[in-house]
Amino acid sequence: MEEQKKILCVGLVCLDIINVVDKYPEEDTDSRCLSQRWQRGGNASNSCTVLSLLGAPCAFMGSLSAGPVADFVLEDFQKSCIDVSLVSEHAQCVLPASVVISNISTGSRTILHMNRNLPDVTAEDFSKVNLSQFRWIHWEGRNADEQVKMIQQVEMHNSRLPQQQRITVSVEIEKIREPLYQLFPHGDVVFVSKDVARHFGFQSAEAALRGFYPRVRQGAVLICAWAEKGASALGPDGFFHSDAFPPPSLVDTLGAGDTFNAAVIYTLSHGGTVQEALTFGCRVAGAKCGFHGYDGIAEKFSNK
Amino acid sequence: MEEQKKILCVGLVCLDIINVVDKYPEEDTDSRCLSQRWQRGGNASNSCTVLSLLGAPCAFMGSLSAGPVADFVLEDFQKSCIDVSLVSEHAQCVLPASVVISNISTGSRTILHMNRNLPDVTAEDFSKVNLSQFRWIHWEGRNADEQVKMIQQVEMHNSRLPQQQRITVSVEIEKIREPLYQLFPHGDVVFVSKDVARHFGFQSAEAALRGFYPRVRQGAVLICAWAEKGASALGPDGFFHSDAFPPPSLVDTLGAGDTFNAAVIYTLSHGGTVQEALTFGCRVAGAKCGFHGYDGIAEKFSNK
Repeated sequence: MEEQKKILCVGLVCLDIINVVDKYPEEDTDSRCLSQRWQRGGNASNSCTVLSLLGAPCAFMGSLSAGPVADFVLEDFQKSCIDVSLVSEHAQCVLPASVVISNISTGSRTILHMNRNLPDVTAEDFSKVNLSQFRWIHWEGRNADEQVKMIQQVEMHNSRLPQQQRITVSVEIEKIREPLYQLFPHGDVVFVSKDVARHFGFQSAEAALRGFYPRVRQGAVLICAWAEKGASALGPDGFFHSDAFPPPSLVDTLGAGDTFNAAVIYTLSHGGTVQEALTFGCRVAGAKCGFHGYDGIAEKFSNK
Repeated sequence: MEEQKKILCVGLVCLDIINVVDKYPEEDTDSRCLSQRWQRGGNASNSCTVLSLLGAPCAFMGSLSAGPVADFVLEDFQKSCIDVSLVSEHAQCVLPASVVISNISTGSRTILHMNRNLPDVTAEDFSKVNLSQFRWIHWEGRNADEQVKMIQQVEMHNSRLPQQQRITVSVEIEKIREPLYQLFPHGDVVFVSKDVARHFGFQSAEAALRGFYPRVRQGAVLICAWAEKGASALGPDGFFHSDAFPPPSLVDTLGAGDTFNAAVIYTLSHGGTVQEALTFGCRVAGAKCGFHGYDGIAEKFSNK
């Protein structure tokens, strides 16, 4: 029964409009894309996609505007069998699109982000959630002050339950943004990005893990992926590492980090070890870079 | 009663996603837009917008996909009071978006076009249209073989009517594409672009008009706009010119040509002279370059 409980990811959903070109456009010219696709994006939303493809029931919590982009996003969530009952709609806001220019000649990705005018999920919104349906809740670090309060609600909920029924909490610290660093002591599993690690002057995943480890709570597992160098973890059982599993040719790296996180969460939430989780994370994320989007994951890795 | 008949524009509608930046993005970086807006685009669609803002009842004929972008586009047509009863929907096709990067520091516009997989309107589609509701039909040159057949249907219709009830035909030859040049002898009013003129080696609007004039039918008016140099026309009554009316500061040149065409058609279809049409075309198009989008046109020029 615990096995059927869902994994909840709290964070961002957006629309990525991906334009594939064979030459990066020069300023003030007209050019033609090779192809264009619309893809639901956002870290938490992408991790849900991968969890669902791997065969784990999951739910997304985040805010959404009204309008045609929101319709596209909701329909795509539903196609991926992701529970969206916790998505809050804001009729007066616009869900903007991120424009991605993907150059197949160089593999480069140029991203034009948009500021969202959508309010993030608050601790008050979260207080209305029936937590007993979840076995794992993952936060993409955003409005960290509120997110800490949400995690405290989970801790309160956990404190009334026997160990094996407790909800595991994971957090992702991906962006270089000071308020996010308060999330370090709040996860059973903490993902910290290469970007943040380098911002702090660390030149390897291992250095970052040893440097940041004093910030996490006792017993927590800290994980850092380092692109083609693979990923490492530090926890109460020591240090672990997995090499990367690069695909035969690099096709699409967009969302590779979200894929890694999802595959790690999937493994740990099914009783796997930290080493198994790292290796599976690197395998799935590496394979994902070999094709566009995420659908190829189901064929190769699904446990459904 | 003739005054209440509509102007029909046949051609393209698409979605422009306009990303305003203060620095053109370097390849392989992440950056943030200042703003983003979605705008219904396409030459014929833009000309309809301007005609409607000027106060002329008008209709658009073109093809559309199903899906969220099409919903956005249809809703926007309706907001602009443009009759879309002749729009054909193609459920299996995707309406792609053109991505525009608009740099406010330099005024540059970089456009990433997409190939549409939508079939253009055919002569067969057009044969089902009740022509008696229109006083003017404008074609954006695209599938010229079919468009010539449509125009022949209008000529047949006109041949049964007294002069003052006949439909005026205009065509736009904007793109450098050989098949489009067969449209020259098929309009009462023919718009030829600076791009096409320069492709043929002409260095001014007047040179282009004198060079192309042997291609148009007897009695037709040939018009060529030349950006900041204004616009010129050659017809049975001779040569005419209007200088440009540049705005105090250049804000948004997207759709300026479509605005010019619409203002010219508006004037001529209300009994104005060629000189009045050129001057009004340059006035409205110039003013339009001073603000984003088209809504400002109504305030300044509407005759409603």
